[in-house]
Amino acid sequence: MENQRRGKQSFILEHAPVITHWASVAGKKEAEGPLSSYFDVKENDSYFGQTTWEQAEKRMQQLALETLITKAGLSRHDIGLVFSGDLLNQCIGSSFTLRNANIPHLGLYGACSTMAQSILLGCMTVSGGFFDNAVAMTSSHFASSERQYRFPLGYGGQRTPTSQWTVTGAGAVLIRRDGTGPRITQCTVGTVTDLGIKDANNMGAAMAPAALSTIRAHFEDLKTGPEDYDLIVTGDLGQLGKNILLTLAQKEGIALGGKLTDCGTLVFDINKQDVHAGGSGCGCSAITLCGYLLDKLKKGKYKKILFCGTGALLSPTSTQQGLPISGVCHAVTIAGGLS
Amino acid sequence: MENQRRGKQSFILEHAPVITHWASVAGKKEAEGPLSSYFDVKENDSYFGQTTWEQAEKRMQQLALETLITKAGLSRHDIGLVFSGDLLNQCIGSSFTLRNANIPHLGLYGACSTMAQSILLGCMTVSGGFFDNAVAMTSSHFASSERQYRFPLGYGGQRTPTSQWTVTGAGAVLIRRDGTGPRITQCTVGTVTDLGIKDANNMGAAMAPAALSTIRAHFEDLKTGPEDYDLIVTGDLGQLGKNILLTLAQKEGIALGGKLTDCGTLVFDINKQDVHAGGSGCGCSAITLCGYLLDKLKKGKYKKILFCGTGALLSPTSTQQGLPISGVCHAVTIAGGLS
Repeated sequence: MENQRRGKQSFILEHAPVITHWASVAGKKEAEGPLSSYFDVKENDSYFGQTTWEQAEKRMQQLALETLITKAGLSRHDIGLVFSGDLLNQCIGSSFTLRNANIPHLGLYGACSTMAQSILLGCMTVSGGFFDNAVAMTSSHFASSERQYRFPLGYGGQRTPTSQWTVTGAGAVLIRRDGTGPRITQCTVGTVTDLGIKDANNMGAAMAPAALSTIRAHFEDLKTGPEDYDLIVTGDLGQLGKNILLTLAQKEGIALGGKLTDCGTLVFDINKQDVHAGGSGCGCSAITLCGYLLDKLKKGKYKKILFCGTGALLSPTSTQQGLPISGVCHAVTIAGGLS
Repeated sequence: MENQRRGKQSFILEHAPVITHWASVAGKKEAEGPLSSYFDVKENDSYFGQTTWEQAEKRMQQLALETLITKAGLSRHDIGLVFSGDLLNQCIGSSFTLRNANIPHLGLYGACSTMAQSILLGCMTVSGGFFDNAVAMTSSHFASSERQYRFPLGYGGQRTPTSQWTVTGAGAVLIRRDGTGPRITQCTVGTVTDLGIKDANNMGAAMAPAALSTIRAHFEDLKTGPEDYDLIVTGDLGQLGKNILLTLAQKEGIALGGKLTDCGTLVFDINKQDVHAGGSGCGCSAITLCGYLLDKLKKGKYKKILFCGTGALLSPTSTQQGLPISGVCHAVTIAGGLS
């Protein structure tokens, strides 16, 4: 086996795996946003027909997986391995999705970086010949997340201007060794980065340093730069975090301006949808990728993007104990066009 | 790249990665148990010098990682990638361990199957040439787990006879492409298996069906059987779960008797240490593997074992909502002796 490692944090995929299919499931507010036409499933009922928000999240992932399998013309038994995770305690959104589904499953926790993390691991799996295909999947739900990390919705808590709106949605991609679709050519694994932000309502600020760290490592390890990309898309710093990232990058001489966008600012109309700093949650980058970015890549609108999943590594316990919020960011290069 | 996949859930490692070093950290009760002499670090202070049990868990993982790096004669900068996870909400034990450590990190959630899951992914990473080496690491802490899943210790709740005692400990292994030490030759990824157990104080019963499912898949996929192993070691079903597994296996004509043991029954003296059904927690299989099993493999006492990490996929929320407890089990074949 050739050594595919490059630099400290990155590797190339000599035989680049293909994202042959993708699927997205979106809630009501997301379906009212600018990306509405790209989503496969849209649902007005915040419970998705279930009795709890946690089970709604399970149902969203099930819908994403079922839609993906149908779009690919496969049956459940053809799926090699599912990498998935979510924001709920002990990742119950993901584990209940695959309950008795008889599909091999490896659970992840990368907070809102999970879409990028699961794609990265799916690529390792397929590229290394361990399984024939892999699904990368994640979800988040506004109501279950608010209860989990901040306050139950019934409290009617006031949201701060820096806060982001957790996306209600799920996304899934099918990664195969060969086929037609966007290809993943390079990956960069992030390090846990912490500049001491302690405000659980300002996740963008907590994650921006991690995004910079990984983007910088990506450029250094792989001898590339912003000029090689049509788009560098973080998910999900929101408007404030994106501006912080731009400022931090500029100080280091990395010119992201003009190339940088963020899933948290793409998925909602920030001016009209009352989401404050933008979208967040594992589902934010998931539905933006699976509903919008991959379509654009497929159609050749973008030739190459750097998809940077950003996660805030906090828990209600650590916040209550006064500890800072670390961030992590994993990045994958996705090249578009037919292949 | 050769296709290394075998059957539905398994793969072989054509160039089997080596566990060149391992390290374990144990709490007071664990150090009073039968495996005491195998642990690298033993600590009487349940806070490990920190102010909270959550931070104690972070300190345990730090100690395990530092000890591992020292034993391997490396520096922190030589570490390729750390796979780790724990039982705390949002895996803060693992993320705080690697805070600003500048080491690439991918977070996992596999409940008590995390040691096996992280080894499996570490093998993919090294075998596929993505990184030169990988660390697989996990931890658990009795006091933080009780608060997380059941009751704060201060409540003085009565423990049921079926309950297990969460191990306070952390374990880490270094996986390299070449070197001297036990080798991982085969892996089987588990599916989420659920027979409807709802008692959060009877995890062994919840996990036994998952263990059987994975062990059966392992035998079928890889055309092997109990006779090919010196030991089949689950972690951690406890005494009750182990007996359930034996019964379930016997019904299917799989003769595990004589070969089956469980980390939850190895790590404590069940008759003397008042742990009811035995040990549990991510740290249970971690310190049993990193302190005891790998030593025996290195010395040739065992030629080949099947290490089966078993995890119960529940959260306090799902338990309170009356939902059943799913289980998952991932298995790795470890071959001993010098190589």
